[in-house]
Order: sequence, then C-alpha cells, then structure tokens
Amino acid sequence: MASSSSSNPAISAPPPSIPTLKDLTIENITENTIRINNQCTDPRTRYLLSRLVTHLHDFARETRLSTNEWMQGIQFLTATGQISTDVRQEFILLSDILGLSLLVDNIDHPKPKGATEGTVLGPFHTHDAADLSMGEELSHDDKGEPMICVCSVKDSQGKGVAGVKIDVWETDSEGFYDVQRAGRTEPDGRGVLHSDKDGKFWYKAVVPVEYPIPHDGPVGKLLKWLGRHAYRPAHMHFMFEKSGYDNLITALYVRGDKYESSDAVFGVKESLIVDIKTVSKEQAKEYGVPESTRLLEWEFVLVSEEETRELRNKLAKEAMETLGLERMKIVDGLPVPEVD
Amino acid sequence: MASSSSSNPAISAPPPSIPTLKDLTIENITENTIRINNQCTDPRTRYLLSRLVTHLHDFARETRLSTNEWMQGIQFLTATGQISTDVRQEFILLSDILGLSLLVDNIDHPKPKGATEGTVLGPFHTHDAADLSMGEELSHDDKGEPMICVCSVKDSQGKGVAGVKIDVWETDSEGFYDVQRAGRTEPDGRGVLHSDKDGKFWYKAVVPVEYPIPHDGPVGKLLKWLGRHAYRPAHMHFMFEKSGYDNLITALYVRGDKYESSDAVFGVKESLIVDIKTVSKEQAKEYGVPESTRLLEWEFVLVSEEETRELRNKLAKEAMETLGLERMKIVDGLPVPEVD
Repeated sequence: MASSSSSNPAISAPPPSIPTLKDLTIENITENTIRINNQCTDPRTRYLLSRLVTHLHDFARETRLSTNEWMQGIQFLTATGQISTDVRQEFILLSDILGLSLLVDNIDHPKPKGATEGTVLGPFHTHDAADLSMGEELSHDDKGEPMICVCSVKDSQGKGVAGVKIDVWETDSEGFYDVQRAGRTEPDGRGVLHSDKDGKFWYKAVVPVEYPIPHDGPVGKLLKWLGRHAYRPAHMHFMFEKSGYDNLITALYVRGDKYESSDAVFGVKESLIVDIKTVSKEQAKEYGVPESTRLLEWEFVLVSEEETRELRNKLAKEAMETLGLERMKIVDGLPVPEVD
Repeated sequence: MASSSSSNPAISAPPPSIPTLKDLTIENITENTIRINNQCTDPRTRYLLSRLVTHLHDFARETRLSTNEWMQGIQFLTATGQISTDVRQEFILLSDILGLSLLVDNIDHPKPKGATEGTVLGPFHTHDAADLSMGEELSHDDKGEPMICVCSVKDSQGKGVAGVKIDVWETDSEGFYDVQRAGRTEPDGRGVLHSDKDGKFWYKAVVPVEYPIPHDGPVGKLLKWLGRHAYRPAHMHFMFEKSGYDNLITALYVRGDKYESSDAVFGVKESLIVDIKTVSKEQAKEYGVPESTRLLEWEFVLVSEEETRELRNKLAKEAMETLGLERMKIVDGLPVPEVD
C-alpha cells in the first residue's frame, strides 16, 4: 500500500494490479481508493474519480470531519434527492447556490469577446414546452405586465443565423414557474421558437419579476443556516441550439432589480442586464399590441462550435499547465492524463 | 470582488459585508461564494463550507468539468437519494465505496494502542432491533451454520465494563440483511445486548457469509463502470455505547475469506480478523448447544471518552499544523478558525 495523498492533482497511472486493501489509514486510504478505481478502462473517468476522491478525502482530513457531521451530510444529500421530482430538481439548485453551476458553464462554454455570455441553466427548464409561431403568446398570465420580446440571433460576423431553436422560459407575475404550480396540466410561461431567415424571432410574454428559489426544502434550509437570502433578480431564460454553433444557455436580467448584485445563484453578468422599454406608436402598430406594452429588444451573438472547441482546448491546456499537469492531452475537449 | 482561490485551506474571516456578486469568473467565484456563505454566524459551519466550496470548485477547475458530466453527476446524486428508503441508505453506500466512511471513522474515533479498532458502520444498521437476554438467539435462520458468540467488553486497564449497550447485526446464510428481504415485518439477524457485571455477553447467531453490497442501484452501476467487484468478506457488525466511553462502531471479519483484502468498502483491519472455532465438549454443555456448534470468542477493548477526546484534539492539532493552519482552535473536539 502506497502512502499519503496530496492536494496536487496526481497523474492517474494505467490500471495497476489490484492493491491489497486492508488496514487503511487516514494517510493511505486516498491513494488506495484511487488505485482500485483505476481498474476502470476509461481514462477520463479515471481522472475524474481520482480528483473526486482526493478532494473528498482532503475535505474530511482538513476539517477533521466528525461522524455526526458526516451523518448530517448523508441525510442532507438523501433529502435533496428525495424532494426532487420530474418538475423539481433540488440538486441543480444546490449546485447553483454553491456557485458550481456558473463555474461549469464558464469552463465549458467559454466566450470570445463580443459573443453573448452564458449563465446558469437553473432547475426549471423542461422538455415539454410548446412550439410557438412568430408573435405567439409565451405567457398566458393575465396579471402579468404585457411585454413583447423582439430579438435576433447573429453570428460573430454580425450575420443573422436562421433556423436556430430557441427555448425560452420565465416566471409568471407572482414569481413562479409553471412547474411550481400545483395541478399543472400543461406548460405555460415557456415556449420553443425558431429564428427566421434573418435570425429574428419575437413573441409575447410578461415582464419577469424577482422571486425566491424554492426554499421549502434542504437547499432553503441551508441558505437560511448560512444567513443568505433566496432571491433571484427578475430575468428571462434562453437556450439556443443549432448544429455548427455552441449551445448557448443564458438569461437576460431586468436592470435595476434590487437583487441585481446579490443573486442567490450567482448568475448575473453586466452584459446580460437589459433595459425594459415601452413600445413606440409605430411598434405598437407593427406588432399589433397596445401602446402601453413593454418591450425587450436584444441581439444574441452565437459562437461557432469550432471556435468554442479551440478556445476551450486552449484554456484547458493553460489551466493544466498552471496546475503542473503537462502530461495531459485534450480528448474531445476534455483533459485526460497521458498514459505511457 | 477578491480574486482567485487556492488549494490551501484559507482561514475563514469573520462575516464580511455582503460582496457584490456579479460578473463572476472561473477565477473569482470561489472566493465570492465563500464570502457570501461567511454571513453564517457559526464558525465551524463557515469553515466546513469554505473548504467544501473550495474543493468542489477546484475539482471542476482541475478536470475542466463539462456541462454533460455535471448533468450526469446531478442525475447520479438524484437517483442515489431516490433509491434510498427507511431500510436502504444508498448515500452511505456511496460514502463507503469511496473510502470516505472509513476515513471519517478513523479521524473521529482514534484508538490508542491496545483498543479495539473501529470500522465502517455500513448502511444496514437499524434502530428497531429487539433487546436480547443473555444467550438468546440473534438469528432465526434455519439454514445458517449455528454459532455462539462469547464475548466481553474491557476497558484499557483490562477491567470488564458492565452495562454496555451492544448492538449486533449480521447477514443471514444467503448474505442478506433482514432489511433486504421483501415483506420484512420484524427485525432478524440483529439484536441489542447488555454486558453483565464482568463485561461479558453471549448470544446465538449464525456464521456470517460474504455478500455483495446492494448493486442494483446507482452505486452498483458506478462499481461496475469502475471495474470493481461489490463483495464484502463475511463479518459481523458491533456497536458499543456506554456513557463515559467513546462509541465504538466495529466489525469482526472471518479469517480466510476470499475478499479479505479487497473489501468493496475498505473495512478490513488485521486486528479485527477472527478465527471461527468449534465449541469444546465442555462449552457445548456450558452453553447448552450441540457439539458441532461454531464458536466466536472475542474481547473488545473500549476507550474512555476523555482519552479519545485528548487523542482526537492532539491529532487534529497536528493535522492543522501540517496544513499550515496554526490559527485554528479546537472547539468540542473540532477545529475552527481563530477569529480576531
């Protein structure tokens, strides 16, 4: 049994013969756990597991984690899984409030200058939203403040991109997504659009409002224990998909919201804050809406898959070098240890 | 917004004013997440969360975790919670196969030389086991190989300890705990005993057999993906409780089991391996059992709470110093950062 683990990422070796697992100690259990896991034939999994085990064990060693605290953690994670349903994803919420979701989006979807930045997916995206025709109503909430969204999708050269699938979802006027309403029989406040030949798309919605993330479960208890509020500033979610372009998961935030700089899930970026205006007389006529209708205008800029892959690889290599992991290679955009 | 995080444990400062959370990047999100969590008034929680967030983020940064991998992780954890029930604890199983459970036991229940070592609790302890009188049957499995267990509990001076509550649980002859049997109406293969005035206790059981941990769920899938087997060598679990003594969670392993040095949950320690003998003619008469009855004899040695606390504090301080965390203090046996 080899001894000791370290905080520095170790290159995971090719699968060794099975180690003898007996009399494991605080000092040698990490290395031995990694060695038994290294029987896995997939090098990326070996690397992920070796880092996961090292961090998990280092966490316990550095904090001298007690059996009681460990059991509280077990119970917290179990409750987090058990409150999750088809329409509630408490583990995504947990990842969001710990900053992991935004971090992963930043890592996996790097953006060159000028491209629309990404942000957290959140736990409320569904796969059952209706297809909307141009100008159709996304929200049927009578109490919401009517707003039309007039948008376009461009590429990095400023050319409109046609046929992009655009998934949009927002809260109702009381700050709830449809899936949070008891007795939901069909989707509302969400829809799927496709950009026209010039990259344009528009639809009728309501002005989104600030809201607390679901806080009646384990994540809410954790936030309360930490002295943190559960609010997100008003925003509308967007997801863009078209072959040849990197998927863009983003959101637009309403300027001036009081939670603009304390979003419970760390999602706000200055470049994604929008001014909600009111339609002009001409626009009211053009879009067939009353003159009091609010207006969200925005131009989204997608990045090609190729440009994203190159940027992701470049940043991954730089990060690996900073960590002293020069014997890594990039496979499918992800680092794996070089094996002799 | 302060920049960058590091793998070195940072002393968590007293709660700062709420940081501005906007435009968070791969480099600065860790520090900012810790700062918002530091609104928590409990210093131990602040320390735990600061290390948790640092390790979670470092894991994502070092592996360049992809959105797809993150989603697989979310789904895995959700499934792990959802398969858990009152009688199945898949998160404990996950902790066990990642080596965390044994590590935490080693940290929280350090043993001086001569004391019985601890090992993993496992997911099968319940709170509904019947109280057994001396010599009563723990197992009612007719197919099992009958065995009597003749044991004693001593203190570090070799003196018998009376009135210790001893929780014992084992598999049936087919390698299943009662809770794994459909239609369980009452506990079997488990019981609670109390040591007599000399520290002795004895009961009738069956010889435990090797078995795979439950592998029809997420943890089983993970083991398979890693190329690991799911087996534990034959063993019997024990938990000792008496005021003034450190709780002892341990197990005895049957010598010669083919999984003795590859336990799926890393629980085997040489000092906990026992020879299963057969009763002598005299013992058969003394305990009123047939002469073919197998025999497990063992002497357990408990450590006082005070001695454990001193040892735990000493080891925690040494570990903190090794980590360069000299501005920590030990509160209730656990490290917390010194606050000015």
